[in-house]
Amino acid sequence: MRTLIGEAGGLRTPGPSAEAYAPANIALCKYWGKRDNELNLPVTASLSISLGRLGTRTRLTPRSGADDRITLNGDPVPADSVFARRLRTFLDPFRAGEAKAFEIETENTIPTAAGLASSASGYAALVMALDRLFGFNWSPAQCSIAARLGSGSACRSIGHGFYRWNRGEREDGMDSFAVPVDTPWPELRIGLLHISSGEKNISSRDAMKRTVETSPLYREWPGKVERDLPRLAEALADRNLHIAGAVSENNALSMHATSLGAWPPVLFWLPETVEKLHAVWQARADGLSVYATMDAGPNIKLLYEASAEPAIRERFPTLEPVSPFEEMPEKSPGAVSGSRVD
Amino acid sequence: MRTLIGEAGGLRTPGPSAEAYAPANIALCKYWGKRDNELNLPVTASLSISLGRLGTRTRLTPRSGADDRITLNGDPVPADSVFARRLRTFLDPFRAGEAKAFEIETENTIPTAAGLASSASGYAALVMALDRLFGFNWSPAQCSIAARLGSGSACRSIGHGFYRWNRGEREDGMDSFAVPVDTPWPELRIGLLHISSGEKNISSRDAMKRTVETSPLYREWPGKVERDLPRLAEALADRNLHIAGAVSENNALSMHATSLGAWPPVLFWLPETVEKLHAVWQARADGLSVYATMDAGPNIKLLYEASAEPAIRERFPTLEPVSPFEEMPEKSPGAVSGSRVD
Repeated sequence: MRTLIGEAGGLRTPGPSAEAYAPANIALCKYWGKRDNELNLPVTASLSISLGRLGTRTRLTPRSGADDRITLNGDPVPADSVFARRLRTFLDPFRAGEAKAFEIETENTIPTAAGLASSASGYAALVMALDRLFGFNWSPAQCSIAARLGSGSACRSIGHGFYRWNRGEREDGMDSFAVPVDTPWPELRIGLLHISSGEKNISSRDAMKRTVETSPLYREWPGKVERDLPRLAEALADRNLHIAGAVSENNALSMHATSLGAWPPVLFWLPETVEKLHAVWQARADGLSVYATMDAGPNIKLLYEASAEPAIRERFPTLEPVSPFEEMPEKSPGAVSGSRVD
Repeated sequence: MRTLIGEAGGLRTPGPSAEAYAPANIALCKYWGKRDNELNLPVTASLSISLGRLGTRTRLTPRSGADDRITLNGDPVPADSVFARRLRTFLDPFRAGEAKAFEIETENTIPTAAGLASSASGYAALVMALDRLFGFNWSPAQCSIAARLGSGSACRSIGHGFYRWNRGEREDGMDSFAVPVDTPWPELRIGLLHISSGEKNISSRDAMKRTVETSPLYREWPGKVERDLPRLAEALADRNLHIAGAVSENNALSMHATSLGAWPPVLFWLPETVEKLHAVWQARADGLSVYATMDAGPNIKLLYEASAEPAIRERFPTLEPVSPFEEMPEKSPGAVSGSRVD
């Protein structure tokens, strides 16, 4: 982080306040396995779709007290929570001058019931707010790197649409950031199927580590991603749901499969996960174009096109549809949204 | 099959009737993938435990009519069913002389609700009854090969206890048969958890084929089996449930994982499968020594020792326990059971 601050000419006096919005994202080709646990450097590249209106809005205000004050959806966050401690550590390089502490107001537009992680949009919004607050004028790549240091997948949440996180080769991670894949697909829908927002039995971070270390099946993962990524990118450019959906679903199931081969076994699924997967496959057998993807948790996200929505909603009454290319809060030309309040 | 009949000096006039019993078996290191679909030759070796009192008893009686007559648990089996057609084809090499047809009376002592395949014990019992009927005096290895031609895993059902099916190298399969692993473990229990006896959405045969052909994860399978088998054999000799259970559970989950990476995806599980898996892991977290294994279906089998049974039954009230080394119908010294009725 100090490298990025240095590249911007060092810490200046911050403005009075700044805020930014970042969307959550879902990987169609997953980020699964780190080659550096400190810097969140991935074993492979990955590719995501941002979730438009579902994301995080964060306002940062420097304050003179000794302690940060953090609120989440209006409620104070206990200072000793994991969330608060990670946030404080992340903000440490930005403390200077009179106002060494921050007030951090975070609003998630992701309904808790959506079963989506908010750390990606959270760190992306925070980084963009910091950029505005200090006037760093970071490039999207620099924002992406800064967000990655907070949470790996956050590097793909710095804008709307598809993002490809390039693996990079450097040990310092300065070439490992996400770039927009400029192939808009207005008809594409992401349908969230909420299964559980309960505490996971294992964190993504620990599951990833255990899988890399103990599952022989993981050895096939890097090669699989190398084959999946170009097929996926081509399918997105062609707006070919049949291929994009199949590659995404197969990629997600393969990710979960590598974990199942770990010891002790890692299974994110709940009974309802299996019920819904079979329902997706039955829908396809009945002629509907719908595909599933899943992150490191029990929840399922459906991929389909707008025209299929009525039929899909009939089968999945709890569906929460997202239009990633039609609901883009604060979309700015640079694909990074944020505003400095002076 | 004609080779085996030739080795026994050809078809003689059969006796009036013969019967045999063979136990079902569950692989602790799975048979997953064929290198020859006609001869049921496996990609790797495998290792199983026979299920004692759960198995198949078959009586064979030559008859002069044109058609076989097949009964299953007393009920006539329709001649055009898959079951009857496979059986007829299997019996074709044994048709000669006056009585070219057979009456085949099959009794499964596997309760339908046990959710166990009966093809393994079925073909093993049939082969042993044929051996007796024609007086071939086949060796256990020859019986195993003959059973394998009916159904791959049947080659491990020719006796009680642990069996190791050696892969073999020959193209004609004459070195691919199961041998007893003589490490009795009287305290070992297999607990059947019945989840579904419904029709599978895909046959084991087709699932295996699709996995080998389309799942990149399958590439790790042969190497995994090579590492698992010696660890498992050593643990069985030591009666070390901690290792034997862990290797078996990890092997089974890895098998299911390879299928999940196939396209279209193959998932044998039902919602209850996941529920029960989590319950097994919770039981272990609570200090119970219990491990899960699963074949190509939704049902779960538990591995534990007799002393843990009360505690396990409390958590799994529908448990059906099997004592593989204490309930061995018709155990004969040669590990092959059968009787010729002259």
